[in-house]
Amino acid sequence: MFVPLTPLRCLHRAVDLFGHKTGVVSGDRRFTFAEFGARCERLATALAMEGIQPGDRVAYLSFNTHQLLEGYYGVIQAGAIVMPLNVRLTTHELAGILNHAGARMLIFEDDFAPLAEELRPLCPSIERYVATGEAPADLPYEALIAQGHPERADIFQVDENAIAELFYTSGSTGTPKGVALSHRTLYLHALGSGQVFAGDEHGVDLHTIPLFHANGWGKPQSSVMMGLRQVMVRRFEPTTVFRLVQEERATTMALVPTMANALINAPDLKEWDLSSLKVIHIGGAASSPELVERMETALGCQVWAGYGLTETSPVATSARPKSTIGELEGPERYRRQAMTGWPVCGVELRVVDIDMRDVPRDLASIGEIVIRGDHVMDGYYKEPEATRAVITDGWLHTGDMAVWDEESYVLIVDRKKDIIISGGENISSLEVEKAVGAHPAVFECAVVSAPDAKWGEIPVAIVVLKEGQTLDAEGLREFLAGRLAKYKMPRAIEFVEGPLPKTGTGKIMKRVLREPFWAGKDIRVQG
Amino acid sequence: MFVPLTPLRCLHRAVDLFGHKTGVVSGDRRFTFAEFGARCERLATALAMEGIQPGDRVAYLSFNTHQLLEGYYGVIQAGAIVMPLNVRLTTHELAGILNHAGARMLIFEDDFAPLAEELRPLCPSIERYVATGEAPADLPYEALIAQGHPERADIFQVDENAIAELFYTSGSTGTPKGVALSHRTLYLHALGSGQVFAGDEHGVDLHTIPLFHANGWGKPQSSVMMGLRQVMVRRFEPTTVFRLVQEERATTMALVPTMANALINAPDLKEWDLSSLKVIHIGGAASSPELVERMETALGCQVWAGYGLTETSPVATSARPKSTIGELEGPERYRRQAMTGWPVCGVELRVVDIDMRDVPRDLASIGEIVIRGDHVMDGYYKEPEATRAVITDGWLHTGDMAVWDEESYVLIVDRKKDIIISGGENISSLEVEKAVGAHPAVFECAVVSAPDAKWGEIPVAIVVLKEGQTLDAEGLREFLAGRLAKYKMPRAIEFVEGPLPKTGTGKIMKRVLREPFWAGKDIRVQG
Repeated sequence: MFVPLTPLRCLHRAVDLFGHKTGVVSGDRRFTFAEFGARCERLATALAMEGIQPGDRVAYLSFNTHQLLEGYYGVIQAGAIVMPLNVRLTTHELAGILNHAGARMLIFEDDFAPLAEELRPLCPSIERYVATGEAPADLPYEALIAQGHPERADIFQVDENAIAELFYTSGSTGTPKGVALSHRTLYLHALGSGQVFAGDEHGVDLHTIPLFHANGWGKPQSSVMMGLRQVMVRRFEPTTVFRLVQEERATTMALVPTMANALINAPDLKEWDLSSLKVIHIGGAASSPELVERMETALGCQVWAGYGLTETSPVATSARPKSTIGELEGPERYRRQAMTGWPVCGVELRVVDIDMRDVPRDLASIGEIVIRGDHVMDGYYKEPEATRAVITDGWLHTGDMAVWDEESYVLIVDRKKDIIISGGENISSLEVEKAVGAHPAVFECAVVSAPDAKWGEIPVAIVVLKEGQTLDAEGLREFLAGRLAKYKMPRAIEFVEGPLPKTGTGKIMKRVLREPFWAGKDIRVQG
Repeated sequence: MFVPLTPLRCLHRAVDLFGHKTGVVSGDRRFTFAEFGARCERLATALAMEGIQPGDRVAYLSFNTHQLLEGYYGVIQAGAIVMPLNVRLTTHELAGILNHAGARMLIFEDDFAPLAEELRPLCPSIERYVATGEAPADLPYEALIAQGHPERADIFQVDENAIAELFYTSGSTGTPKGVALSHRTLYLHALGSGQVFAGDEHGVDLHTIPLFHANGWGKPQSSVMMGLRQVMVRRFEPTTVFRLVQEERATTMALVPTMANALINAPDLKEWDLSSLKVIHIGGAASSPELVERMETALGCQVWAGYGLTETSPVATSARPKSTIGELEGPERYRRQAMTGWPVCGVELRVVDIDMRDVPRDLASIGEIVIRGDHVMDGYYKEPEATRAVITDGWLHTGDMAVWDEESYVLIVDRKKDIIISGGENISSLEVEKAVGAHPAVFECAVVSAPDAKWGEIPVAIVVLKEGQTLDAEGLREFLAGRLAKYKMPRAIEFVEGPLPKTGTGKIMKRVLREPFWAGKDIRVQG
């Protein structure tokens, strides 16, 4: 029997089987799955009344709230595409994304009301601005959904290959690209990743990762499908997280290393009852055995690293214990659990050389991670060339360089793309270089990652000035302020005598420039 | 990214991630997943060399062995359809099925060599008889696969909607029908049912259910996908099961109630170490709280009932604990765990009246179970009319009558179809009635179920003779011997004065005839 694969079925399952269970907790609001489902359906029918057509893009500027989670179902039930935006981008960057996508509606939290006003003149495609709070807008969100009515979608009308979600990611080139995820991809991702990342429905999942990051690690679908209670963490902040774990008896959450460090170093850690925690998934940037050990000790639960990309919905691997390596204790256990991990169901992963041959499984030979499977995007929105550049020979080329072993455990050792991961955010060094290079006094520059205790990595700009020109760090920072989101700003700026060291083909040798910052550090992943 | 959904990916995953793990234990043979995968690939390439074309049917007469399990992958890698036959059928019944399917090859165990010889003249479509053992045949199985070579299928050449498996089930009409399961259906079934029925890869699954029954409850795919070790139980026998649990440290198995009763009543039960057991799934016929309690006490593990049909691949529900009903103890826990259960991921299930309206969730209103979802077959092989009779309005009509509650727990209370379930086998009363009615002395007859301590239910024939004719039970049994498989033979034959009680439209009122056998019995499910 052909039944279209669509995340709407995750919602229907939760409503049918767990209707009277509190499914979504968001601030002081608590919704049963039946109530949550009805709100999603009201949103869907209201959007249709507002003229939103199948395939239209509905964008969000929001931290983690039930309204944004409702968009994950309401927007796609209307046949439209939900498009959560990274709220840390600048007005200019957001306008570029919204215009590329041709978004027709923007739904925003009060915090982003000034930003929404700035976007109005820049984004001609947006016809309606909807405020989830009290901010002035074309339409308040509650008024919008009050227009609608609870009516379940006929899933047989869904084209499983239609786009359901769109996430813009900076990628390696510096030009944000929209990762298009289909209904089928998201449903299969929920089934395949949910077994590991959501677990059984007796659990309570804390929604710590911003939903606008890589599809919220797929939790919006997998947790709903499995019937887990989801507790929204609007903005990550240690005391809030501790309080919610204690109050809601949370069993699982996902963290990037920066968040993990913040939790285990929080002064009030010992004041809270975190005994309900069972598993924490850590990803988004490289972990370390030391971090895993410190987390397990401090938080009293299992900690497993994992790996994925927006382009893989995102879950590809998890470093959960594997039956073939037996029971591990001590350092060896932490080493394994801090690795990039091994694939979840639905994902095929290889580490290959430039001719697509598997590199030896010796934990020493370095190759690129390539992935194929149900979780991989169809492509970049309206960018067939960019898509062809990353999906070749039927495999997604991740640009992540790794080693692997006989157990199929993978460990990322470097990045092919010049991405700096700082506090869980991807920063394209090329993009920052472009901004720096736009200053009239700059001759050439390179942006490399340097290790940082708090952020994991930080971008450092190494700048050569044109002859006879003068510029200091403060002047350059002022110049960059309007051009780059705050988190992309170089944390250190070094002015050096040129020229920068280059390869034979004229490419700047970043490895050489990076070396002094990393020398002597016992960290495996370098930007 | 579109990647065809096919069970071949389950095998590839096991080989890639668990290659050096002992994956299949069969008698005194042990195969790593890499070895098992290579044998499947040899079979696939050898079948192609033997002229087996995509879509051809390859039938098996075999108990649970690694050779039959290899067929689940080797045959479908060749693009053909694997067709395990119920070894308990008569030569006549098997010939009917093989001819309906137009099977081109029959692979058989030595036990069935005489049967294979009998089939030769009856089945003109079968070109090759292959013996897995020493029996004379056109080709020994090991010679067949020695012709082949290990070569992985290109899954992108697989049509996910093509038929992969064919299981003949007697259904309600007495004419066996071939349940056709596609690659997509089987893959999604493995993903959706595996979370509950296979569990995590640290486990060891005992393959107690004959693979020729309802796709071996999907274990051939889900256990391989998850990377569990599978231990084949060639023929169910308590001491063998106990020995394998102890030797292999088995954690899970599936049982029909007859098997469960045999285990808990076995005299040597206490002599074995069964402490590795974690969960037993019980299904195939109605369970009871008393049985669940006795099993948990005797076997020291959790016991959950479940439900499915060959037409649903087969897993539809499981009565595993549900978060919304909290921790249960004692009788209420056993009552819940003995119920038909609630749906697994991928399955939508309703209990409806004749107008397809949900019956009230009051555990009292009776309706028919209808199912739709990823696990449901595409239809009966070459029987579009029979398919349309069971799949209407987009739902599979199961013929099982049930009640349900607010928690979506379902409990089957009766069967619409006149199926008698005896020792886990479906017996169509209509089919037995046809055979009895074929005797020249019989005027009319009805076959109904009667309760039986050992078999759950047994078929009882109630016979009215033609005027002036004489016939006794022994004479009728002799007449039926060649026409019916042994397990379908009426266990009691009652000769009565006619006519049998009938409804206004002339249908025999079986409920009235059945009543005396069931009066005073505290058993919910009646045939």
